[in-house]
Amino acid sequence: MPFSTRISVSFGDTDPAGLVYFPNIFHYCHIAMERFFESICGVHYSRLIEEQHVGFPTVKIDGEFNSPLRYGDVVNLEVSVLEVGNKSLTLGYTISNSSGVACANVKQIVVAMDVRSHQSVAIPAAIRVRLIKI
Amino acid sequence: MPFSTRISVSFGDTDPAGLVYFPNIFHYCHIAMERFFESICGVHYSRLIEEQHVGFPTVKIDGEFNSPLRYGDVVNLEVSVLEVGNKSLTLGYTISNSSGVACANVKQIVVAMDVRSHQSVAIPAAIRVRLIKI
Amino acid sequence: MPFSTRISVSFGDTDPAGLVYFPNIFHYCHIAMERFFESICGVHYSRLIEEQHVGFPTVKIDGEFNSPLRYGDVVNLEVSVLEVGNKSLTLGYTISNSSGVACANVKQIVVAMDVRSHQSVAIPAAIRVRLIKI
Amino acid sequence: MPFSTRISVSFGDTDPAGLVYFPNIFHYCHIAMERFFESICGVHYSRLIEEQHVGFPTVKIDGEFNSPLRYGDVVNLEVSVLEVGNKSLTLGYTISNSSGVACANVKQIVVAMDVRSHQSVAIPAAIRVRLIKI
Repeated sequence: MPFSTRISVSFGDTDPAGLVYFPNIFHYCHIAMERFFESICGVHYSRLIEEQHVGFPTVKIDGEFNSPLRYGDVVNLEVSVLEVGNKSLTLGYTISNSSGVACANVKQIVVAMDVRSHQSVAIPAAIRVRLIKI
Repeated sequence: MPFSTRISVSFGDTDPAGLVYFPNIFHYCHIAMERFFESICGVHYSRLIEEQHVGFPTVKIDGEFNSPLRYGDVVNLEVSVLEVGNKSLTLGYTISNSSGVACANVKQIVVAMDVRSHQSVAIPAAIRVRLIKI
Repeated sequence: MPFSTRISVSFGDTDPAGLVYFPNIFHYCHIAMERFFESICGVHYSRLIEEQHVGFPTVKIDGEFNSPLRYGDVVNLEVSVLEVGNKSLTLGYTISNSSGVACANVKQIVVAMDVRSHQSVAIPAAIRVRLIKI
Repeated sequence: MPFSTRISVSFGDTDPAGLVYFPNIFHYCHIAMERFFESICGVHYSRLIEEQHVGFPTVKIDGEFNSPLRYGDVVNLEVSVLEVGNKSLTLGYTISNSSGVACANVKQIVVAMDVRSHQSVAIPAAIRVRLIKI
């Protein structure tokens, strides 16, 4: 079962056309990923960075925006695990507006990185086991 | 010849790892696109929206981030026109850091839209002719 | 009784020092104000703008930041009404971190504005009555 | 003579009313401060942080916004040194739009901080001497 989370579009996220500025849709995805780590992997992303010195920077991301997200929308982001590699993780996001219309699809590849050395590392075992299970 | 422009990474664009937060790389692309419109198409993007009521929202964007951009980098964005459709425009971005290393590649499809009705429209002729020439 | 709301600090809100970049603290205040309007004034800020064509731009804001907000904090924002004028509204924000430490204080004056003409207007009566009651 | 610098308002900086979202005006101030450090103090703010481990977080900031900044504006920020303490620095910003109208005034107190320990420190002597001279 995929993980899902909601984000309310705030005034500052939108542009002169009244629509969410698209880089903010990727910001929403990152927030959803942070919540996914906390909920599914059992560790707050901030602790992962501070205590285990591991982060998951994005190396590839593709987005399709079919319908605009508007100011006032409560956006639903459904996060699914598409692939778990040794060092990399592929996540999919289905993004819907308040009416349940799927407005955007995003596919993201992140790589486990030591935040001190900026070198890629294996996904920590405790996280890996949770990623494979869902 | 592709159009190119420079953006200095500011403190607020970076994350706890000292690297540009990836949604901000897409924000840089949008700034580069705005400058591209002004320089190549002869119209400031703000006037296009206010006077001609035409904007170019992004419908598809793919990014590959091979090397991080860091605080202190002066980023170079090279913008090239990959395809000009009736209503859509495909742009490519090659993004390099201060040392000239190509750190990211982005491919973006935007669609001409009437910002009042939110309906897609043909690319205005005056812009189209410039897009085809370069 | 003041209104209060919570915002989780996200990765993208923080800077290379691991602290919330201060303009984002003001962004948090604006989000809190939007929720305040919905909860206390009975109208979503987006509907206020779209249907009544009234917004509340900030004309003066003072912030004191005593302790940093960090990545991982769940920030509590307590919003109080300090003054209700004919056209203007003064709000106070007490901003605490996860440990309950008051990290920041903000005082903001906003003015009711017709978003079409950009002229100031009287605070709509239905909102005014609610602002005075709390 | 005060230091001044220009920032073009980008599409993503503006809100549904077509005006710069006010937290972004503070972001502009921070960018101006970074350029001020590079130009007046002879050190890039990123090197100050990375090599000398000193940053200047904001502890107090007051802003007055008299006229809106709009999409398309090239904003001029004039930065002046109002006070140099042992550990703190007070900066003033006069912010004008493309027509030269003073739209905003900001007064900011920053404190020198060791970015590793998050403790306040004396302003580095090499910077102090330049701050006093201008």
